[in-house]
Amino acid sequence: MPRYLFTCAYDGEPWHGWQSQVNGNTVQDCIESAIARILGFSLRIHAAGRTDAGVHALGQCFHADVPITCRMGEEAWLAALNAQLPLSVRVLNVREVSPDFHARFSACGKEYEYRIYRAPVLLPHFAGRVWHCRRPLNMVTLRRALKLYCGEHDFRRFAARRGNEPFPVPPGFFTRTIFSASAGQHADMLTIRFSGSGFLYRMVRMLVGTAIQVACGAISLYDVEEALQHSEGASSHFCAPAGGLYLVRVFYDEPWL
Amino acid sequence: MPRYLFTCAYDGEPWHGWQSQVNGNTVQDCIESAIARILGFSLRIHAAGRTDAGVHALGQCFHADVPITCRMGEEAWLAALNAQLPLSVRVLNVREVSPDFHARFSACGKEYEYRIYRAPVLLPHFAGRVWHCRRPLNMVTLRRALKLYCGEHDFRRFAARRGNEPFPVPPGFFTRTIFSASAGQHADMLTIRFSGSGFLYRMVRMLVGTAIQVACGAISLYDVEEALQHSEGASSHFCAPAGGLYLVRVFYDEPWL
Repeated sequence: MPRYLFTCAYDGEPWHGWQSQVNGNTVQDCIESAIARILGFSLRIHAAGRTDAGVHALGQCFHADVPITCRMGEEAWLAALNAQLPLSVRVLNVREVSPDFHARFSACGKEYEYRIYRAPVLLPHFAGRVWHCRRPLNMVTLRRALKLYCGEHDFRRFAARRGNEPFPVPPGFFTRTIFSASAGQHADMLTIRFSGSGFLYRMVRMLVGTAIQVACGAISLYDVEEALQHSEGASSHFCAPAGGLYLVRVFYDEPWL
Repeated sequence: MPRYLFTCAYDGEPWHGWQSQVNGNTVQDCIESAIARILGFSLRIHAAGRTDAGVHALGQCFHADVPITCRMGEEAWLAALNAQLPLSVRVLNVREVSPDFHARFSACGKEYEYRIYRAPVLLPHFAGRVWHCRRPLNMVTLRRALKLYCGEHDFRRFAARRGNEPFPVPPGFFTRTIFSASAGQHADMLTIRFSGSGFLYRMVRMLVGTAIQVACGAISLYDVEEALQHSEGASSHFCAPAGGLYLVRVFYDEPWL
């Protein structure tokens, strides 16, 4: 069966996250229904990763296998899906890929962006799309905290538990590599960008929440170092709100594409 | 009675424009209700100008007179109003002004921005907030059309009729001065900015719609020149959609403030 890779963007606000749910108003359900209306039967789609309720995507990826009798051109898929989807979900790109390709298992990394709005009053257009955080921040300390995150670490203290983790935890289960973490401010908008091999459950929001605690002086850089070096101990208490988070891109090696 | 000048921002999408209506879900009604909940009685507010359904504001201004017994500090007003308003309407600034000041009659100009998104697929976050226009545009011709608009002209052929215009039309009734009109493109977003002494009904959207027609070669620069020089003749047929328009700022002379 031909396998297609779809890149999509969505506004997280109206949806209960990516992952299909029984009574769920989720992005996956929404896209699967659109495909069912196009093909006349249901298909399962497989995303590069889930996003939580309220989290946005600018470049989420998913794949689906389509019976050969339903093969369509990439442009035809794009037009048909966007005609069926609500404006809060858009397919940006479609390409046929090898049947060995898997949106999740072939991914070699992801890029996320976190937006923090710092003006006294939240502009209406940013409601649900930024973290409105007015605390004074030390940008130097913020960037130092981000630098500590870079490299390979056991990030279990920067992750929430889903409850389905294996026990005992296999070695390396919580280990991820952050390739880069940077912060830039333009007018009142502070943007923090992460790219890495992968991210644990709620990890980006906890990295952001913790870095902001450091930048406003509530905790020290030493606390961050300690949490990265010693995997025993409680997880970070600081989880930034979902609405500021954007899944920007999923990285795949060129041979797959 | 103390007179206050309020600067506010709103997302135009959920509202039927600025102006109060009998059954209307309008921004003015929304703000007047918020004030009534704060003071315990109703007040009329007076804006610098109306905005149509779907048009956004980043810096709309309005004034209101408050009985001296209800005098509040500027910060208290800001906090009280934003606590009562929905997130789609925010008051950004409050200041007490002279009783001679009038949000509309003291204004000496306005600035508008029009956003056109040119990528093949409209990003979900831009739905209702841009004109999604995929036609190829000649930026040189676009800028020439904008340059023709600058200066003092009779703009009646770039305005829709409200139906309450005086007849016969007094000299200068449709005359306005455009101080500047410019276009800039950043990634897939084309932004057209106008500042001028004042704008007729739907004028910015008609100026944008006409300039885009010129830029995609549907009409000529000569047609624009002709419409500016000869006020007889039909109005422009090209009105850009409301969702791309933002009222950015209202200009007041410093002595008022």
